[in-house]
Amino acid sequence: MGAPDYSLYLVTDRGLASGRSMADIVREAVAGGVTCVQVREKSGSTRKFLEEARRLRAVTRTLGVFLIVNDRVDIALAVEADGVHLGQQDMPIPVARRLGPLGWIVGASAESLEQARDAEEAGADYIGASPVFATPTKTDTASPLGLAGLRAMRAAVKIPLVAIGGIHAGNAREVIRAGADGLAVVSSIVAAKEPLKAAKLLRQLIDAEKKRRNHNI
Amino acid sequence: MGAPDYSLYLVTDRGLASGRSMADIVREAVAGGVTCVQVREKSGSTRKFLEEARRLRAVTRTLGVFLIVNDRVDIALAVEADGVHLGQQDMPIPVARRLGPLGWIVGASAESLEQARDAEEAGADYIGASPVFATPTKTDTASPLGLAGLRAMRAAVKIPLVAIGGIHAGNAREVIRAGADGLAVVSSIVAAKEPLKAAKLLRQLIDAEKKRRNHNI
Repeated sequence: MGAPDYSLYLVTDRGLASGRSMADIVREAVAGGVTCVQVREKSGSTRKFLEEARRLRAVTRTLGVFLIVNDRVDIALAVEADGVHLGQQDMPIPVARRLGPLGWIVGASAESLEQARDAEEAGADYIGASPVFATPTKTDTASPLGLAGLRAMRAAVKIPLVAIGGIHAGNAREVIRAGADGLAVVSSIVAAKEPLKAAKLLRQLIDAEKKRRNHNI
Repeated sequence: MGAPDYSLYLVTDRGLASGRSMADIVREAVAGGVTCVQVREKSGSTRKFLEEARRLRAVTRTLGVFLIVNDRVDIALAVEADGVHLGQQDMPIPVARRLGPLGWIVGASAESLEQARDAEEAGADYIGASPVFATPTKTDTASPLGLAGLRAMRAAVKIPLVAIGGIHAGNAREVIRAGADGLAVVSSIVAAKEPLKAAKLLRQLIDAEKKRRNHNI
């Protein structure tokens, strides 16, 4: 599928879907401009996670976008996802890398400069810079990096930075301006009344800011 | 390591270890006669599960007994365990089989005759017949099979049956007599003051009953 595009990176959360199927939300979101999907299930059984990942694998394959599985290397392998995303309490990066096929995407969350440098050194393909702002969808996170923290992280590592945490249309441009290669969102799309429109607006803001940035270089 | 011996099958539970390390308990238990160890972690992070599985892999490798990982195929692969044990809410048997190396042990819990037949048909190497008796260590289980249920399961499938649930020295012989190939225990060894002695007694009872059974054939 070519190089991964992390520009608008959707992380699923069934708790925010208000009873709609995540597959439907993802379909709409990708039609609106989402470039990469991460399936995340922090409660429930392996079987349920696997079934959800399978549904989203079918949808993302049809639509031609990447699918990343949060934490669970076995589920990523079982559904032939494009890779995994690892938190600090998940598998170490080299272990996941060894278990996956050649060319697998291994992303890693980093909540500090040190974690970002470690992740790059351990061979991560991208960093989930987390959280940029305070966020209601994760309660176990460190204190927010802020835009200054994100800029510092950008200066410290070379691999792509995907910013996550409290990102919405109102702050999207400034996060890209601070050096993020992509924006990861949960509630801004999953909980939106119209995920397609929400994704479209975010994508326009990201593209506009990236264009501006490239002109300045 | 030759054919797996399920005679005395220890399932770990850190909550019952009273602060002792599981590696120490396993060492003692194997010295007492445990033939197979399943590492089970139903809470906590992937990282913690991985670390525990690694410690037990080192111990079981040194002692020459099989190590099976509960539920998590990725952790089983990461530590090069001998196989996985799958509950009804874990991965389907053929999916786990496909992800593991040739000769991997794939065990499956069955709480009914139908589940036991399905597991055998799906290619399970053994069945965890669960629960034989009521048990305090698992609260999400079906109603007990009882000895009659175990006998019926024995008649219904050909693969080894490992009985689990409420098994202790006082009922070990009758469970083997009902057709179990092995006994799986948690608290009877993990919570025992002297795991070595507890394992030794259980193993003697199992061996004596198997000997008697073989003589009768």
